[in-house]
Amino acid sequence: MHIKNAWYVAASPVEIDPKPLGRMICGERMVFHRGQQGQAVALEDWCPHRGAPLSLGRVVDGQLVCGYHGLTMGCDGRTVAMPGQRVRGFAPIRAFPVIERHGFIWVWPGDAGQADASLIPDLTWASDPEWRFGGGMYHVACDHRLMIDNLMDLTHETYVHQGSIGQPEIDETPCKTTVDGDTATTARFMDGIQAPPFWRMAMRAHGLDDSQPVDRWQVCHYSPPSHVMIEVGVALAGRGGRAAPREARTSAIVVDFITPETETSIWYFWGMARNFRPDDEALTTQIREGQRKIFGEDLEMLERQQANLLKWPERELLRLNIDAGGVHARKVIARHVAEERAAAAALAGAASQTGGA
Amino acid sequence: MHIKNAWYVAASPVEIDPKPLGRMICGERMVFHRGQQGQAVALEDWCPHRGAPLSLGRVVDGQLVCGYHGLTMGCDGRTVAMPGQRVRGFAPIRAFPVIERHGFIWVWPGDAGQADASLIPDLTWASDPEWRFGGGMYHVACDHRLMIDNLMDLTHETYVHQGSIGQPEIDETPCKTTVDGDTATTARFMDGIQAPPFWRMAMRAHGLDDSQPVDRWQVCHYSPPSHVMIEVGVALAGRGGRAAPREARTSAIVVDFITPETETSIWYFWGMARNFRPDDEALTTQIREGQRKIFGEDLEMLERQQANLLKWPERELLRLNIDAGGVHARKVIARHVAEERAAAAALAGAASQTGGA
Amino acid sequence: MHIKNAWYVAASPVEIDPKPLGRMICGERMVFHRGQQGQAVALEDWCPHRGAPLSLGRVVDGQLVCGYHGLTMGCDGRTVAMPGQRVRGFAPIRAFPVIERHGFIWVWPGDAGQADASLIPDLTWASDPEWRFGGGMYHVACDHRLMIDNLMDLTHETYVHQGSIGQPEIDETPCKTTVDGDTATTARFMDGIQAPPFWRMAMRAHGLDDSQPVDRWQVCHYSPPSHVMIEVGVALAGRGGRAAPREARTSAIVVDFITPETETSIWYFWGMARNFRPDDEALTTQIREGQRKIFGEDLEMLERQQANLLKWPERELLRLNIDAGGVHARKVIARHVAEERAAAAALAGAASQTGGA
Repeated sequence: MHIKNAWYVAASPVEIDPKPLGRMICGERMVFHRGQQGQAVALEDWCPHRGAPLSLGRVVDGQLVCGYHGLTMGCDGRTVAMPGQRVRGFAPIRAFPVIERHGFIWVWPGDAGQADASLIPDLTWASDPEWRFGGGMYHVACDHRLMIDNLMDLTHETYVHQGSIGQPEIDETPCKTTVDGDTATTARFMDGIQAPPFWRMAMRAHGLDDSQPVDRWQVCHYSPPSHVMIEVGVALAGRGGRAAPREARTSAIVVDFITPETETSIWYFWGMARNFRPDDEALTTQIREGQRKIFGEDLEMLERQQANLLKWPERELLRLNIDAGGVHARKVIARHVAEERAAAAALAGAASQTGGA
Repeated sequence: MHIKNAWYVAASPVEIDPKPLGRMICGERMVFHRGQQGQAVALEDWCPHRGAPLSLGRVVDGQLVCGYHGLTMGCDGRTVAMPGQRVRGFAPIRAFPVIERHGFIWVWPGDAGQADASLIPDLTWASDPEWRFGGGMYHVACDHRLMIDNLMDLTHETYVHQGSIGQPEIDETPCKTTVDGDTATTARFMDGIQAPPFWRMAMRAHGLDDSQPVDRWQVCHYSPPSHVMIEVGVALAGRGGRAAPREARTSAIVVDFITPETETSIWYFWGMARNFRPDDEALTTQIREGQRKIFGEDLEMLERQQANLLKWPERELLRLNIDAGGVHARKVIARHVAEERAAAAALAGAASQTGGA
Repeated sequence: MHIKNAWYVAASPVEIDPKPLGRMICGERMVFHRGQQGQAVALEDWCPHRGAPLSLGRVVDGQLVCGYHGLTMGCDGRTVAMPGQRVRGFAPIRAFPVIERHGFIWVWPGDAGQADASLIPDLTWASDPEWRFGGGMYHVACDHRLMIDNLMDLTHETYVHQGSIGQPEIDETPCKTTVDGDTATTARFMDGIQAPPFWRMAMRAHGLDDSQPVDRWQVCHYSPPSHVMIEVGVALAGRGGRAAPREARTSAIVVDFITPETETSIWYFWGMARNFRPDDEALTTQIREGQRKIFGEDLEMLERQQANLLKWPERELLRLNIDAGGVHARKVIARHVAEERAAAAALAGAASQTGGA
């Protein structure tokens, strides 16, 4: 179950150029490439001639040329040309709304008429020179809601990431979830603790004395369809925590775009945007590879949790206080999906009453 | 969907000797070996004792001995002997009509009563000392009709085989399909062009000046169930093309026997029979290995095309002029399959009316 | 089809300590670990919080701690604690009766109320210092009944194990099956033969002249649910065979515990208990590794036999004299399974009549 009428991160820009990229998003087989003006294009990965995947073709002057018999597709899904053939009567294939923004390729797998570029989240860190983003992608065989649960409840760090970023204070400190319309925020504040290694490094990079106690925060923000941004940071203890003046704190945002491939698999785009030493490329690489390792520790848990849920589909999961963020996300997703289905059913009903098909 | 009452190539002779070969043909699990007179034998790959696959056994004096408990099968599917047992009451297993001819093992997976050796195609090159055949086999996860389409429409060479045998003249030159009963022929004639590398080599081997322009032809012949023979060659330009006198032309036949394993997988026997330098074994090897590489370029396309068709089963494929050969083959296959099913239903109806089973 | 109300070997003791072991037994996902007193514990491999597999967790003071969010399970299936949560209302998970005995972990996958430790077979060799056991485990993709068939009919040794332990006398000598209630015994006696290599080694180890002819025996005992113990040995010819005085014979027991994982896969615990040179660890290793190799020869046959049976589910297998032991075992299993189903249906009927659920 996933929302169709929404922007999802489909790819990193480097993935779609120069070769086309075939990738299933929300159950739709898509092919991504760059058009003549360099713009991102997303089409069905289906050649209207014989059903070959267009992603095995190549891009010529910004148009996809099928690798089987040379049919050329326009960026709108209409066939432009084919050797020795007239193509005016060829049925068009689906073109998906797609936008390149904030360093990602975003696609709208649902009703194209509702695609509105202003719905793409506003990521201030993506264009602020004080900030620097680095990240990667994992394919994970689980429902996207299990990954949302994972990220909206960081008590799992104490157990899954025991050897890396977990620390006992995390699950000793209660978290609090607040909801506001479709979004949910789960916040945890750990005051007067010793900073863990990552943050001691960040403090030094920022000119702070890393032996001092700190106030640490983790504030997880869910917004539909399945984006989770986690504000994380430390400030010298007693200086206001997250609201401390810039010179007394250092912070980052853990970035998570969770894109369904099927009902039980995802493309998981993860990364971190930091606002310290933004020009230090070696640090960007070091953080990205550290994060890759830590986030990789979740994969077996998530995939085997998914396998358990498939084995026992009738069992209810508990909804504890720590789960409140994920529970709200599930409600939001369920409501949107129900609305989408009702709209589709109404449309089908109207079509059948007027004799349409 | 495939014809059952037909001869299919099941194996190369070297595959069935000295060990038995287990191979599924048209959905039937078969085991092939050589009988006492050296003749090919095809039985169900099922030991009547406990269902073990006979293909794990061994051949003793031309009889299959089950590798589990030593039951000995006759070439007619009857149990001949078993240690310490009387075997007269054992139910026979199915024996399939099988013939070794033209350098292949042919099997008839359908109604044995209709198997007629004269229906095996007459391959003149197979026994003509002026000709030499070399070939190999690929297992491909696609419907056999997709491979027929592929071979009856060589415009794909320009795209799939761009780096090897493709040349722009192929899809710049219209092809023409003619049908005659169950067979179809798609012909393309490219006159006054420069020969591509393979044919320049063949011209030199034949004592022709390879710098001269040539008339080149590709004539694809489909015949049921799923054989495609492609006449290919070049002649010095203006000397009559395919009909040019022997001293002015050089030619070959691309040989394709496409044998269904299941509805969506095939054993693809490919090769080339040439009528130049027939005794040059090094050339035979060189051509075979070149062809193996080129034909391997089609596999990913075919398998992913098949995956696309399974994902979108309701979509219709286009039937363009270049597809006419494959389209006719599909009609022929569909008609034969319908006839086979009607005959089977009539037989079942007659049996139930007379109280038979 | 397999009996649920029975003791099965689930693991070797070394497999469940120090890390928990996840293993499916008779279709039930289980997790095994040691409790605070060192006792074996078997629970459902399902965390009541979010369905994570407990087998990814760790054991702290004899209690399983979920590796996802730190929930602590008691050995009775009740949740004991969870960071920051009250757990009194958490639904318990299933705890399976489990006993460590004879060097194995035994589990009862069915109705816990019927689990009776006295039903675990009495294995005298397991605690007798004159005997020594060594063994291992294979996962095999076949119905457990196919493995019982295999072991109750050793004529297959002549074919499957031709290069190792097979000898022609085995299938030249008739076997005899007797049944007694739920058990079956298939015995074969080969008198006055030369001992094969394994037994010549054993004779020398026992101080016997290995050039002398021997009486050899193989006596296969089936008992439910799926245990097969095979008495094997040789005695100097004419001294009474299996009943010969100790100084004239040497013997061993081939130990086979066959535990269903699913309907078509098993955990196969195999080994040999011998009563010669019990303290010779090098010999134990040598025998175990030899047996691992020989028993590995059966796996392809069993897995492909299973594939054949799934392909032709309607076909009946023959039931010859040599199959009598396996045939009886199948009847015993079928009867027990029918009784279990009838009891479950009666229980469900009574519950619905009284308004229970």
